[in-house]
Amino acid sequence: MGSVERIQNVARRVAKWHQAGHQVVVVPSAMSGETNRLLGMAREIQKNPDPRELDMLASTGEQVSVALLSMALQELGVAARSYAGWQVPIRTDSAFNKARIQSIDDARVRADLDANKVVIITGFQGVDDQNNITTLGRGGSDTSAVAVAAAMGAVECLIYTDVDGVYTTDPRVVPEARRMNVISFEEMLEMASLGSKVLQIRSVEFAGRYRMPTRVLSSLTDPTGSLAEEMASGTLITFEEDEKMETAAVSGIAFSRDEAKLTLLAVPDKPGIAHSILGPIAAANIDVDVIVQNQSVAGTTDFSFTVNRAEYNRAVEVLTKEVQPAVGAREVVTDDKVCKVSIVGIGMRSHVGIASLMFQTLSQEGINIQMISTSEIKTSVIIADKYMELAVRALHKAFGLDQPGGSL
Amino acid sequence: MGSVERIQNVARRVAKWHQAGHQVVVVPSAMSGETNRLLGMAREIQKNPDPRELDMLASTGEQVSVALLSMALQELGVAARSYAGWQVPIRTDSAFNKARIQSIDDARVRADLDANKVVIITGFQGVDDQNNITTLGRGGSDTSAVAVAAAMGAVECLIYTDVDGVYTTDPRVVPEARRMNVISFEEMLEMASLGSKVLQIRSVEFAGRYRMPTRVLSSLTDPTGSLAEEMASGTLITFEEDEKMETAAVSGIAFSRDEAKLTLLAVPDKPGIAHSILGPIAAANIDVDVIVQNQSVAGTTDFSFTVNRAEYNRAVEVLTKEVQPAVGAREVVTDDKVCKVSIVGIGMRSHVGIASLMFQTLSQEGINIQMISTSEIKTSVIIADKYMELAVRALHKAFGLDQPGGSL
Repeated sequence: MGSVERIQNVARRVAKWHQAGHQVVVVPSAMSGETNRLLGMAREIQKNPDPRELDMLASTGEQVSVALLSMALQELGVAARSYAGWQVPIRTDSAFNKARIQSIDDARVRADLDANKVVIITGFQGVDDQNNITTLGRGGSDTSAVAVAAAMGAVECLIYTDVDGVYTTDPRVVPEARRMNVISFEEMLEMASLGSKVLQIRSVEFAGRYRMPTRVLSSLTDPTGSLAEEMASGTLITFEEDEKMETAAVSGIAFSRDEAKLTLLAVPDKPGIAHSILGPIAAANIDVDVIVQNQSVAGTTDFSFTVNRAEYNRAVEVLTKEVQPAVGAREVVTDDKVCKVSIVGIGMRSHVGIASLMFQTLSQEGINIQMISTSEIKTSVIIADKYMELAVRALHKAFGLDQPGGSL
Repeated sequence: MGSVERIQNVARRVAKWHQAGHQVVVVPSAMSGETNRLLGMAREIQKNPDPRELDMLASTGEQVSVALLSMALQELGVAARSYAGWQVPIRTDSAFNKARIQSIDDARVRADLDANKVVIITGFQGVDDQNNITTLGRGGSDTSAVAVAAAMGAVECLIYTDVDGVYTTDPRVVPEARRMNVISFEEMLEMASLGSKVLQIRSVEFAGRYRMPTRVLSSLTDPTGSLAEEMASGTLITFEEDEKMETAAVSGIAFSRDEAKLTLLAVPDKPGIAHSILGPIAAANIDVDVIVQNQSVAGTTDFSFTVNRAEYNRAVEVLTKEVQPAVGAREVVTDDKVCKVSIVGIGMRSHVGIASLMFQTLSQEGINIQMISTSEIKTSVIIADKYMELAVRALHKAFGLDQPGGSL
């Protein structure tokens, strides 16, 4: 949410749903720029702000939003009531800055809904069993929204964002990218996890766990437009495969620039080597993304993995100081100038040759593939990040995504 | 508290006490301008913001402060932990925007103190028995500080503010005003309630209820100065009368411009009339200050009272729409251009002629007295507000407060 005016627009949109007879729970994010303002002050004071205090601080952004949105709804004549995460309560574990939701008590919210009130709940935050405020980390408001929708047994979770749906790839990189009306949950999961920034991965996971139909809509459309128009826009993440009209082999191209690659060369090859390497990384709370272990000669193996670029320095430190001496690797080679590009499609299950076309396309563009990782419905490659846009555009075209109903 | 730099200065000051071996609980206010920023947004959205949502909103200001102060202390190597009012918890009633503290649980705070941590608690706010966030209203951080000090059995409550103590009157109005080293609780209560803006009245009441010695200090002095110097500055509010060295009849001149006067003319005089008039005012949650009922002829009486100017419009509405028809008064006369000036002194108990000198002084300046109200240790007059500074200066001089050890 942005300025006061933006809050008033959200209120108009919510009032429209309420007046159409729906029970509505709203989970707004912080006002635009507010979270950054708060984190900026924290970093001025402490280089690495204390995680618990950071959550105490950052959670105020959403609390401001819910109070103002409640006022804006009341001003429109709609009874409304705001709650902070701890008031619901939304229970989480104690992993400050990246907490996970454990349970949501719906009693208080349901009582308000039954009294014809709109309920507004702070996104992004909860409370642990010691009554400490926790936050869910980046994109946490989406996750909160899906979790609340699931807990309340909602018919659908609408996520208003600054894009009007899920595209075959980022339109800023490929102007020919097209909006999908429907996407399967599995595809969305891959698109989100691979860096398509529409929805945060954990909100998609939540949608999947509870089979919660979730629609991504634009918050920039006219808030007073008809509900029918609003529903026709955006992209519905569905759990019914036959609802999905487009049966293209590849539905979209995802990518992420925030990658960094770490390689251990000539690690003595013995059972348990992966755990010896990744155990300390996990213990340092660093998420590992792509992992590749190469077959080796002479009793050694090369082991590569990628991490989020923000955690690159820490990962390098753990690797050189802890892991390398422990496992006896010859050398650590690292590169934070890589990116990941992926093709995603539920149709890949039943089509052959999809990955081949990907490799061929990249080869034609002269792009060297550094790592490859595959799953049932996606194939990812790690390449030098300077080639990212080139690769995405070439693949979008090669798989026919530029044309309506495209792909092989 | 002001900018990040100001928070860092507060941290230095707190660290100094902590390092001297004291267990310290800090109750900071919101950052300078923050509360006004929040209330400004609220009023942009709702002309009369919903009281519950307003507390939800306003309480975030202090939450930001405690988190940042905790970080700043940690950066200085002092273990610290912040709590919002609801986490302590500080229990209040449900009077949003002007809640009253009912109880404070000290268990969690004490455990932290015993673990050598500085504890930082949001001022100004608490939580009601429905887990709604409440705020204590203007100046509520001082009240919170005293209440927490009392609940923790503190030796002394230090209140750092933007003045360096309690003066014989406001130095901005009378440059000759002098700082008092010690003031009795009773005098401080009158000075505070009469508009001397050093401490909020309720914080003084709390200090009195728990006989909590409270020292008003300047937050603008060098935070790294010696503790001895710091203690020698400021004003101690004491409960031991013999500690009070200055036995002047009048200790200070208090005043308040935020007054408005309402008069009902020719009210039929019968028992219960005061209640018939002030009952509806109280029901509208409007505080009444000075009340005067004049003797009357022909079976009617004139009834006047003052309210805070901010509540003037509401009071006029209640009076004209509800009270006047009900009690059958001939006319309602109102004036929001009045002020209150008071002389305060514990010595007034044993001195005669103090009030006379006050009236004589005002008369010599040609100032008409509209209402008079007296108590054991103060005499207040309501006068036209244009005369306020003139009256205060004349009285300050007449009672010898310009000279050290002055007054009759």
